[in-house]
Amino acid sequence: MPTLDDIRQAAAQLEGRIHRTPVITSTVLDEQFGVPLALKAELFQKTGSFKVRGLLTKLLRLTPEERERGVITVSAGNAAGALAWAARDAGVPATVVMARTAVPAKVEAARAYGAQVELVDGDLMASYEAIRDERKLTAVHPFDDLDVITGHGSLGLELLADRPDVTTVLVPVGGGGLISGVALAVKLTDPSIRVVGVEPETADAVSRSLAAGSPQRLPTAKSIADGLAAPVCGTQTYEIVREYVDEVVRVGDDPILAATRLVMSRTKLALEPAAAAPFAAVLEGKVDLTGPTAFVISGGNLDVSRLF
Amino acid sequence: MPTLDDIRQAAAQLEGRIHRTPVITSTVLDEQFGVPLALKAELFQKTGSFKVRGLLTKLLRLTPEERERGVITVSAGNAAGALAWAARDAGVPATVVMARTAVPAKVEAARAYGAQVELVDGDLMASYEAIRDERKLTAVHPFDDLDVITGHGSLGLELLADRPDVTTVLVPVGGGGLISGVALAVKLTDPSIRVVGVEPETADAVSRSLAAGSPQRLPTAKSIADGLAAPVCGTQTYEIVREYVDEVVRVGDDPILAATRLVMSRTKLALEPAAAAPFAAVLEGKVDLTGPTAFVISGGNLDVSRLF
Repeated sequence: MPTLDDIRQAAAQLEGRIHRTPVITSTVLDEQFGVPLALKAELFQKTGSFKVRGLLTKLLRLTPEERERGVITVSAGNAAGALAWAARDAGVPATVVMARTAVPAKVEAARAYGAQVELVDGDLMASYEAIRDERKLTAVHPFDDLDVITGHGSLGLELLADRPDVTTVLVPVGGGGLISGVALAVKLTDPSIRVVGVEPETADAVSRSLAAGSPQRLPTAKSIADGLAAPVCGTQTYEIVREYVDEVVRVGDDPILAATRLVMSRTKLALEPAAAAPFAAVLEGKVDLTGPTAFVISGGNLDVSRLF
Repeated sequence: MPTLDDIRQAAAQLEGRIHRTPVITSTVLDEQFGVPLALKAELFQKTGSFKVRGLLTKLLRLTPEERERGVITVSAGNAAGALAWAARDAGVPATVVMARTAVPAKVEAARAYGAQVELVDGDLMASYEAIRDERKLTAVHPFDDLDVITGHGSLGLELLADRPDVTTVLVPVGGGGLISGVALAVKLTDPSIRVVGVEPETADAVSRSLAAGSPQRLPTAKSIADGLAAPVCGTQTYEIVREYVDEVVRVGDDPILAATRLVMSRTKLALEPAAAAPFAAVLEGKVDLTGPTAFVISGGNLDVSRLF
């Protein structure tokens, strides 16, 4: 299990390579939510989401042999660009296996950062494993990896440094990687701060895993918050969420969409629906706010073709 | 004609009442445009646009009698919220005359800031003039007023203070109020800096006025950049643009929409189409960039109901 020192070391290693994203305030949202809000604007991070924190941390910790052979991941699209960016920054060759049906803009983003993209038909995981074994590449899991989680923890340290007054931290939940890192950083610093996760009702692998007492896989996972539509809770993330997260609540797609519009119109931040899920949970009465509250605006990779 | 000292005084008067908006950079846009860009993020201004700069300046310069009787404006919607906010801030009663067909959210915004909104049928201007005369209210023109223009100039001073290296400043153009203030501030500080305006092809009152040699009124003005769809060039703004603006170019709605999407996806700023017009002009080859270039991101009052 990563320690606070591990997270501090990762943060030091990331410094100067990625952005230290700002914490933003909004008078009008403070009035509406009844408490002072701290919006960690991670949508301004490199590649538009928090993912580079953990992925770059992972790549910087590979052995020289692993670095030379290169890394591989499989992605529906969101992690592809972040891994490709991190690999270029770390100087590690990267291969990304994507379905031929992936969104073209996401394929292009990965290629633009220099990754080798393998577009495959049929069984994505089988193709991924075959390429990995044949080329002896190191697999990089986008969230269920302790180095990745440690890197994500850097966000929690920055947040507490900028806003030591927060009493609750709200985090969007997909497979559990981001909240695992943030919860470790927050709880190991101050266990009295409440950490609450929010996941879509239609992609609730983490809630179901907590209820079942073991990591669960969903038959399908789909949400307007596509960044949270992981069909599975990781085994590492399951253990950390169970121990360090106070609560994970679920929210529907309609409230997520309404919250996306509300927060965008009030803050002028082009946040993606995943990042608006915690606001939706509060507006739906699923989380009570009792003091200064941080919202992690996890990303801004909106499908802008759907604007107008 | 406002002097640089007038603009400095207005800026000092606004300090602490409105935001000093940040200048943002984007590595990926710098690469695409081939020069360093300075994005003046005025979408983060109070009420989501630059308009409060000039309107608050105007209200703070009223005589005690004028303040007591109150002010009135007529608005299709965009200036209504800004005037209402400024009037509340200045402690001046405000009446806003709007068409009954105005966007309900814009009516509500003006009311929420405490303005008295008069929704009228038929001839908007006739109703406006009747109410103004009957109640002895002071008329506030949203752009064709030297106090308003002086207040808008504060944006130009902030920009030059933060980025003294810029050699070109690009400004969206509706009726000409914003660019008049910015051009005065910039040219009176350093006449070698180029100031270029961009207006929609379908709402090109300022270009037509410059070509005709006098302020022109268009029979209709309509654009995806609704913030720029002024059907008329002001008489004050005409004189200032003619003297201080190097060039006004026109751009079509399709390039404006494409630029809105591009800039939003690259910067994660929820800018409105009006604010993207200058980017569209450059991408369409209408303006050559030769050095560090400032883009005024004039506002972020997107119709978020059109998202998804």
